Amino acid sequence: MPTDPVALTAELIRCPSVTPEEGGALTLLAERLAAAGFECHRADRGGVANLFARWGARDAARRFGFNGHTDVVPVGDAGAWSVPPFGAERRDGQLWGRGATDMKSGVAAFAAAAIDFVTETPPEDGAVILAITGDEEGPAVDGTAALLDWMAAQGESMSVCLVGEPTSRERLGDTVKIGRRGSLSAFFTVTGRQGHSAYPHRARNPLPALVRLMDRLASARLDEGTEHFDPSTLAVVTIDTGNPATNVIPAQGRATVNIRFNDRHTGESLTRWLESEAAEVAAAFGVEIAIEVKRSGEAFLTPPGALSELVTRAVEAETGVRPELSTSGGTSDARFVKDHCAVVEFGLTGRTMHQVDEHVPEAEVTALKAIYRRILRDYFG
Amino acid sequence: MPTDPVALTAELIRCPSVTPEEGGALTLLAERLAAAGFECHRADRGGVANLFARWGARDAARRFGFNGHTDVVPVGDAGAWSVPPFGAERRDGQLWGRGATDMKSGVAAFAAAAIDFVTETPPEDGAVILAITGDEEGPAVDGTAALLDWMAAQGESMSVCLVGEPTSRERLGDTVKIGRRGSLSAFFTVTGRQGHSAYPHRARNPLPALVRLMDRLASARLDEGTEHFDPSTLAVVTIDTGNPATNVIPAQGRATVNIRFNDRHTGESLTRWLESEAAEVAAAFGVEIAIEVKRSGEAFLTPPGALSELVTRAVEAETGVRPELSTSGGTSDARFVKDHCAVVEFGLTGRTMHQVDEHVPEAEVTALKAIYRRILRDYFG
Ligand SMILES: [Zn+2]
Ligand SMILES: [Zn+2]
Repeated sequence: MPTDPVALTAELIRCPSVTPEEGGALTLLAERLAAAGFECHRADRGGVANLFARWGARDAARRFGFNGHTDVVPVGDAGAWSVPPFGAERRDGQLWGRGATDMKSGVAAFAAAAIDFVTETPPEDGAVILAITGDEEGPAVDGTAALLDWMAAQGESMSVCLVGEPTSRERLGDTVKIGRRGSLSAFFTVTGRQGHSAYPHRARNPLPALVRLMDRLASARLDEGTEHFDPSTLAVVTIDTGNPATNVIPAQGRATVNIRFNDRHTGESLTRWLESEAAEVAAAFGVEIAIEVKRSGEAFLTPPGALSELVTRAVEAETGVRPELSTSGGTSDARFVKDHCAVVEFGLTGRTMHQVDEHVPEAEVTALKAIYRRILRDYFG
Repeated sequence: MPTDPVALTAELIRCPSVTPEEGGALTLLAERLAAAGFECHRADRGGVANLFARWGARDAARRFGFNGHTDVVPVGDAGAWSVPPFGAERRDGQLWGRGATDMKSGVAAFAAAAIDFVTETPPEDGAVILAITGDEEGPAVDGTAALLDWMAAQGESMSVCLVGEPTSRERLGDTVKIGRRGSLSAFFTVTGRQGHSAYPHRARNPLPALVRLMDRLASARLDEGTEHFDPSTLAVVTIDTGNPATNVIPAQGRATVNIRFNDRHTGESLTRWLESEAAEVAAAFGVEIAIEVKRSGEAFLTPPGALSELVTRAVEAETGVRPELSTSGGTSDARFVKDHCAVVEFGLTGRTMHQVDEHVPEAEVTALKAIYRRILRDYFG
């Protein structure tokens, strides 16, 4: 009997796995996968649960991998939900609950597809690997990155990997992601000298330098986009002083910018650019500007080719939609996988992800399982 | 026996009159003044104590007024003081305590000068008036402004007025203030549309508009100064967003500027300028910018003439220093007095005002009393 991905999603939603809680979700998956002949290992680290499952030989010629996460973001305003967030209610053809789209449905769909595939049409000299983490929504330090470290240490590897995050925009199948922009945040602290507003020449106000620097950064055009990427963007996300007194010139001002960048840049090159802009403004205004840069991930691309074509064809065959190859959006664990093997991302529409009353059409989950199953068949066929 | 202004300052320091507390200071002064033949009235309003004292007839031909305040700013970090802040210790020729310079010494000096003057050389057809408030350091709404209202309602008026604030810069006598710049604060709120940093085109970040506007205002040269005034200045005093999430573009940003302006401008003309700058930036960036303007006082000038010359000559005779006529610095209650009569300001050096371990050289207080006494003699002479 085929595995029902909607029922499995519902079971996962009932596991309250708010990041970084395991909540029973990975335990449940390990049971189901083991029953289908998968070899399962927990690769927990730093309080984060991670599950590695492999069907077939470690040294099989072709090893197809799926990656995803069972942790979910917090419920938020619980009183605003019209259903119990971990109740997995089914109503009007929709399945409701936290994680319904991001991404317990995606995990259930690839787990169900993998179980049915190895049970009904076991490949020769092939392996199917599931690398599932309990921390993608949190710091993600001990999540997929740790799981991949663990796999490398065990001699485990994937030939290719599909991340099952919700990538579709308007309808299931319209978007496959073949890369992601990089992301970094820079924290600026401008220091001058405090004083009285009536005697500005005795003080050195840090704020004129801060606004000049932010104006320069916000006005800069980082690039015009590249073949597979949109133009890089820079957002000034906060500027803070915390000075309640209108007759006092403050000693310090702070600002934070977030940059989403394409393959024209690296975290390193952007850091140098920010430092040089800051140094020019600091010199012009006679203040000190300190920068702390936090890099969340470099831009990466899996160039269009065999893997993206495999996924694209399966999507088109099942849905009639020819997906666009995209690199837009935020970061995902694909940024870790890309250091190990070719990776693409494909999954549901994510309309209600992270929101109150998160829900998913049951038919989409069923269709997603069918796509994943076809990808496995074509890959090993 | 002449009145000792240092002893009187010490008595006033021992009254803990942290604004707006009366702390016994005005009661003490009323007692001493009444004993010397002054008619005293309390003109309290809104929890603030104000003292009016007049020697001589209400309708005397010449009515010389002194204005000052007995309230003091808070002690601040009490543990950082090396003396009890209300102890009035006398050590090394200095008198120590909160209010020692700003301005219990100034009040004591003019009260002592007035008492001795009317006792020893009572003028004919002349009146000496002391208008002393308990709220100059606070909101100043129910302070000198209220006292002047009360006086007008009672048919009381001053021909000229000397405000005894610490005006000297480096040494006693070097500066007489004949006007003050105006002051206003403008509070800006820029509103855009919140969004995710990865999709800036779906949001409308208010911060680029905010930094552009602040850069324009901070870079603007308001004027080159006027005959009696320094150039007007604008200080950006705070910019705040309060957005802790680097992946979120905020919906709003706020900033405050403080303008100290000379007689080339009015609060009204500057408000129109700020509104027009904001409107241009708002249109360019497609955001909304709201402004709230709080005017603390208009610029004013008592043109050099009889009053400033009276004070200047007395200062020079007592100290050997020829004072400069200045309009620099913050606001004072002279901004209220100027609507009623000609006003100048003269007092001590204010080096330690509002600071920990505030103190005053005893000899300066004695010299200040002598200057005030000479001013009275020359005015009525
Ligand atoms: Zn996700
Ligand atoms: Zn004062």
